Amino acid sequence: MTALRVALAQLPVRVGDMAGNAAAMAHAVSTAESLHADVVLTPEMAVCGYPVEDLLAEPEFVRAAMDATRQVARSTDRTVALLGAPWVTGCLPVAGGARPTGWMTDAQSRSLRNVAVVAQRGTVRGGHAKTLLPTYPVFDDARHFEAGARQQDLYQVQTPDGPVTFGVLVCEDVWSDELVQEMRRGGAQVVVVLNASPYHVGKQQLREATVAAAARNARVPIAYVNAVGGQDELVFDGGSFAVDGDGDVIARARSFETDLITVDLPVAPEVDPGRSWDVVDLGATHTRRCTLPAPPLTAPREVDDEVYTALVTGFRDYCTRVGLPKVVLGLSGGIDSALAATIAVDALGPDAVWGIGMPGPYSSDGSVTDARALTENLGIRFDVVPITDAHLEREQVLARLLTDRTGDTGHPVAWENLQARLRGTTLMTIANATGALVCTTGNRSESAVGYFTLYGDSCGTAPNPLGDLLKTTVTMKDGAVLPGVYGLAQWRNDRADAAGLVPPIPVSTITKPASAELAPGQQDSDSLPEYPVLDRLLLAFLEDHASAGELADTLVADGWDRQVAASTVNRVLTLVDRSEFKRRQVPIRIKISTLSFGRDRRMPLANHWSHATAEPRPGELQPTGSVPDVGVPGAP
Amino acid sequence: MTALRVALAQLPVRVGDMAGNAAAMAHAVSTAESLHADVVLTPEMAVCGYPVEDLLAEPEFVRAAMDATRQVARSTDRTVALLGAPWVTGCLPVAGGARPTGWMTDAQSRSLRNVAVVAQRGTVRGGHAKTLLPTYPVFDDARHFEAGARQQDLYQVQTPDGPVTFGVLVCEDVWSDELVQEMRRGGAQVVVVLNASPYHVGKQQLREATVAAAARNARVPIAYVNAVGGQDELVFDGGSFAVDGDGDVIARARSFETDLITVDLPVAPEVDPGRSWDVVDLGATHTRRCTLPAPPLTAPREVDDEVYTALVTGFRDYCTRVGLPKVVLGLSGGIDSALAATIAVDALGPDAVWGIGMPGPYSSDGSVTDARALTENLGIRFDVVPITDAHLEREQVLARLLTDRTGDTGHPVAWENLQARLRGTTLMTIANATGALVCTTGNRSESAVGYFTLYGDSCGTAPNPLGDLLKTTVTMKDGAVLPGVYGLAQWRNDRADAAGLVPPIPVSTITKPASAELAPGQQDSDSLPEYPVLDRLLLAFLEDHASAGELADTLVADGWDRQVAASTVNRVLTLVDRSEFKRRQVPIRIKISTLSFGRDRRMPLANHWSHATAEPRPGELQPTGSVPDVGVPGAP
Repeated sequence: MTALRVALAQLPVRVGDMAGNAAAMAHAVSTAESLHADVVLTPEMAVCGYPVEDLLAEPEFVRAAMDATRQVARSTDRTVALLGAPWVTGCLPVAGGARPTGWMTDAQSRSLRNVAVVAQRGTVRGGHAKTLLPTYPVFDDARHFEAGARQQDLYQVQTPDGPVTFGVLVCEDVWSDELVQEMRRGGAQVVVVLNASPYHVGKQQLREATVAAAARNARVPIAYVNAVGGQDELVFDGGSFAVDGDGDVIARARSFETDLITVDLPVAPEVDPGRSWDVVDLGATHTRRCTLPAPPLTAPREVDDEVYTALVTGFRDYCTRVGLPKVVLGLSGGIDSALAATIAVDALGPDAVWGIGMPGPYSSDGSVTDARALTENLGIRFDVVPITDAHLEREQVLARLLTDRTGDTGHPVAWENLQARLRGTTLMTIANATGALVCTTGNRSESAVGYFTLYGDSCGTAPNPLGDLLKTTVTMKDGAVLPGVYGLAQWRNDRADAAGLVPPIPVSTITKPASAELAPGQQDSDSLPEYPVLDRLLLAFLEDHASAGELADTLVADGWDRQVAASTVNRVLTLVDRSEFKRRQVPIRIKISTLSFGRDRRMPLANHWSHATAEPRPGELQPTGSVPDVGVPGAP
Repeated sequence: MTALRVALAQLPVRVGDMAGNAAAMAHAVSTAESLHADVVLTPEMAVCGYPVEDLLAEPEFVRAAMDATRQVARSTDRTVALLGAPWVTGCLPVAGGARPTGWMTDAQSRSLRNVAVVAQRGTVRGGHAKTLLPTYPVFDDARHFEAGARQQDLYQVQTPDGPVTFGVLVCEDVWSDELVQEMRRGGAQVVVVLNASPYHVGKQQLREATVAAAARNARVPIAYVNAVGGQDELVFDGGSFAVDGDGDVIARARSFETDLITVDLPVAPEVDPGRSWDVVDLGATHTRRCTLPAPPLTAPREVDDEVYTALVTGFRDYCTRVGLPKVVLGLSGGIDSALAATIAVDALGPDAVWGIGMPGPYSSDGSVTDARALTENLGIRFDVVPITDAHLEREQVLARLLTDRTGDTGHPVAWENLQARLRGTTLMTIANATGALVCTTGNRSESAVGYFTLYGDSCGTAPNPLGDLLKTTVTMKDGAVLPGVYGLAQWRNDRADAAGLVPPIPVSTITKPASAELAPGQQDSDSLPEYPVLDRLLLAFLEDHASAGELADTLVADGWDRQVAASTVNRVLTLVDRSEFKRRQVPIRIKISTLSFGRDRRMPLANHWSHATAEPRPGELQPTGSVPDVGVPGAP
């Protein structure tokens, strides 16, 4: 049976590093050449990284990316290289923000495309422009690119087994069954796809199921290469793979690591030439073939491992790429900061992480002892810098002013937020003085209901490793499990245990009730529903767009009183609506869910619509969208 | 000559307030009816506001918008109402973030359109779906909507003058000459356009020139209605207008205010029926017509007035719509906080603005006296809350810690930022206690080069009124003038003077050298080029995408030494690149420029590309994109 030897070069995303990316691509090309591959695939936009957003509006950036791609093309020999790059057709781009003539319509002024450049024997031989430009959750391709036609050229190579015709797609294209079938009917015996497909829980299974179905339906094998590594809030998880014409996965690369796998892919029969598309003849690749070992079929990770690795990867890549691979973080003795510190240590090593305990007037003794135990387990530096004196000074001065001017000291939450802000200021000062990043540690549940202090515990110049983790583990509608803070902490401890190492997170940190410790005896459950309830409501609201009524129904089905259920839901959704303005100013978080805060979910701030009542709030009387920063106990 | 009587209902944008918007639309319909208008136009998406972003992904939101639109439709009689609304064709939307099946391609799963609903005699008679979906600077229409076909229905009414066929477009559609010409050739004798077109300097002239050219080229009159009011960072400036078939403006509504104007628009001749499109016959409108006065032709404002009014409008609408129409702001005695306070007072009234002087260890005497003079001129409350003691306490504690642990006190900028953060914390506490918003006062020049302290002077829960204003006035490439902070301050003082009122901003505030006063004798010019130079470089870089070489050339042309020019440009662009992470966490700013920070300019944070050298920085060694928060003196 005729086979196409395809090398999948799973390369890291490094935005804007054309020289480094081109070197990695050239190295992959030469490796593939030495393995007698017919074709080598690099990820979508491999030469400049993805997403690069409005850098694509800058002529010099695009020119540099195209120059670097041509340079890789010059290094090609017999193996056909598919190089992911932005490519200008006609003239330089005026896409995105760069429209200097202003306000032209898209179709008239776009000339930039998202291309798989086809290179061989030292030159660019052609290319496939991405046809389907996603504009949903995290993607904005239509902002930057002109779409490619549905029917573009196919490519033929003479392999040692005989001629093979293949088609090329870019990422979103392969999610359309139809496009693959059209390409097969047009003459493709193999389809290869360049991707930059970011991680979320269950993504690899979704990718493989989708590509396998497309392969089965079109009776054509598909080779799928993905990027790897973190870029701002996204993590590319690799896991490149190939499926045969039955849709069976016959090769799979590692996840979250750079990799290069090569597979002999049995090709589909030639089609009736009457219906065929234009084919570019690339001539012979190699005349003989070395023998390959069986291609690797790396087993997927289990979900806790996968999520934890995504967080470590995203955190590490951000901090190292911005050139500041060390962090300072506040340790409260609680579960969130403990897990964040553990992730930071796994990402950057213990010498790069500095924990600061900042007890205040209402901190428990456990806050410092638990934090200290954690740092001893992790082997990181720990210092205690109380905020008590600074808090007392500001509280006295401001309480006097407010009493003089307004008759009382106002909303009590102001004085809780004050403590959090003095902690944020303390961390930022230490970080600025020492050239470190600050790691914030708020989880997705808190972020959703605004249970945090803007400019306080949300201070952070590194990505928030917990910002897309609910507090507790929740089962999703499709039955899959979405790990939460507690679950990952326990998993990490268990992993250490199993390896005969000290579990990093103290047991008391995991077992004690959650508390912000900003008022005497305060517990999270004073202000919020219990986390398992809150998290289930949040997930159904945020990801499934469940209405207030539907959410209340799920509680009633669990035995809740109808009225209590309705008021609980009302309270939660009102808090979510009212904290949009706070979420707009927090650090990026590393995406692991299907629909995270950030690029995935874009909301107006001034907004009369209430999710709690599914109707507009009347007039100016009941504010929504924005309230003073009364985050910590979620009031009023 | 046959005329179509068109009423342009220039209504305010109120996101999510379907009940309020529907009431305003119904009122406009009934007014138009009483004026015997044939057609009444409301703004694009008038029923739910625009942009509403991912609220469009929520079935209940869309359903409420459609229900409210149908309710307005029920109130129609003879006058044909064009109602801007999101509209589902087929089924409920899965656009934007709401794609529950996940990762479908856009074209397959979109069923939501941006529609001008055509209503008459109590029912919905048809609609035009926006054809061109902008995805550039501030717009993301392709994220949410499916595009309408290029050829949709035309509508015919029997006016007292005889039958008239008209075509309907939505916003971006009219920026395509071709679409207008196709519609004219298809049979339209008038084109009406529903818009939500946000303000920037020169926008009204651009709109009128574009629409006039389209009218002239197609020999067809065009009526253009715009929305009015602030929505987050955008301000809709109204200025609805009509042009005749020669492209002459024959009516213009007021800018920045709700308005309704009615005009008898002389229609173009009927076209050869052979080429005509489908026409929906709406029957008779009115059988007689009351006499209209000559339509208003409001003169455009001059540019300082226009920009100032945009800032006041955007600031006022945000604060009132979120239900917190009072602000606290820090007054340093400098020009920025003085102008911001003046805008806040013009927006919300003197009783709603509280100025706080927060002298620190390096503050000049003038900082308090100038601030006090300003507040007396403005008639607002002023209090002095020094940060000196709090600063001393934190400085001592942290300097001791750092010296113990690292041998020295680290980067000096940390101690400057500490002062700014204690001020931010102080303002936020006062605001939280009293239910006010905090107004930040940093200008666009500072924002560009990161000359501010994250979580310090950038703290703000109201929109930043100065965030899109350069420090100085700059002439743009097309010769138009872009007013800066100094220019607007002087204009506002002059306006007061001319009206016989006290100019609000003290002369010494305008004349003294700019200083952050965070170190002894510090001036902005120690760290940055003089503002007129800086601002010219920034504008050319940000809006015209000038390269480093081109920027240096402009300085050399002004007599600068080549090497000094190159190093100045290098320094400025490096600062811009390095402060992306800071700009990501600042409050929204009100857009007045063609390309502001915010929705207009979307940049990755981790980024190896350097604008200063137009090449990637090698490896991990030279960080870009993110550095510790060393903003204040812009170092290192």
